[in-house]
Amino acid sequence: MFWLFFAIFLVACCGAGLTGGLFPPGPWYRALAKPSWTPPDWVFPVTWTTLYVCMSLAGARVAMQPSPEAMLALALWAGQVAFNGLWTPVFFGLQRIKAGLFVLIALWVLVAATLWALWRVDMVAGLLFAPYLLWVTIAGALNISVWRLNPDEAKNPPAIET
Amino acid sequence: MFWLFFAIFLVACCGAGLTGGLFPPGPWYRALAKPSWTPPDWVFPVTWTTLYVCMSLAGARVAMQPSPEAMLALALWAGQVAFNGLWTPVFFGLQRIKAGLFVLIALWVLVAATLWALWRVDMVAGLLFAPYLLWVTIAGALNISVWRLNPDEAKNPPAIET
Repeated sequence: MFWLFFAIFLVACCGAGLTGGLFPPGPWYRALAKPSWTPPDWVFPVTWTTLYVCMSLAGARVAMQPSPEAMLALALWAGQVAFNGLWTPVFFGLQRIKAGLFVLIALWVLVAATLWALWRVDMVAGLLFAPYLLWVTIAGALNISVWRLNPDEAKNPPAIET
Repeated sequence: MFWLFFAIFLVACCGAGLTGGLFPPGPWYRALAKPSWTPPDWVFPVTWTTLYVCMSLAGARVAMQPSPEAMLALALWAGQVAFNGLWTPVFFGLQRIKAGLFVLIALWVLVAATLWALWRVDMVAGLLFAPYLLWVTIAGALNISVWRLNPDEAKNPPAIET
């Protein structure tokens, strides 16, 4: 049963993670001014794959321990995964730097709440969410830096041409 | 506690639903050949808002009844919501008709599995997912029709310019 839960949560992560493959960083992103500490492109898929495995392990551990607290943790888990796949289409797809930051703030709050709710049920599950919260924090700092370094881009996002 | 769960699930739905606002149907979609039974544009946000409320009610009902079966239902609920927001950026954003269909097939399977898992815990919760499954079926039929009516568009999606 543990591995069934793990598989379901990993499928959910794949749904969110697919946007990373569908909306890759392109010429627009490369042309932006970025802070010196910006990680190279290859770091992002490697990190996300690791985080998705950790998130799925955390979800499966808590799913094995039914209780009102565990239901809350899984509800919040669903909340964070719904926002996880949103940043890439907003940032790389629509090229909207400010909107991307709002997405990351919402994601950060949901990830922090999920970490807390998981921890209440199972400390290891909570710890498995810690690298994720750290990474969203770093992504937020990077998004803020890109916003400051490219004020014109942030003010004038391209019109939506769909 | 019921309304806390309802609110968390509704936030998750909003995360998925935001893509509908961010990637609206535009000139490309209007120019496509569509079947005669294509619903007018205004039907989509109205339907999705209704479905999101039903999905959140279903999730909250089951979250109030902790059990191994309920954990499975919530895990699947997370799986379906992760794919729910994916179709709009793929179809309207990337203008990829075939990839959109694959997303809908994955979503259909996850929604059907979630409906079954919800039903096992609470019949009303399962029934609340029935209109959602019906709507994804209609969306899939529409996507297939658009694919057949626009073979050149489906064969040559625009290059990703991000």
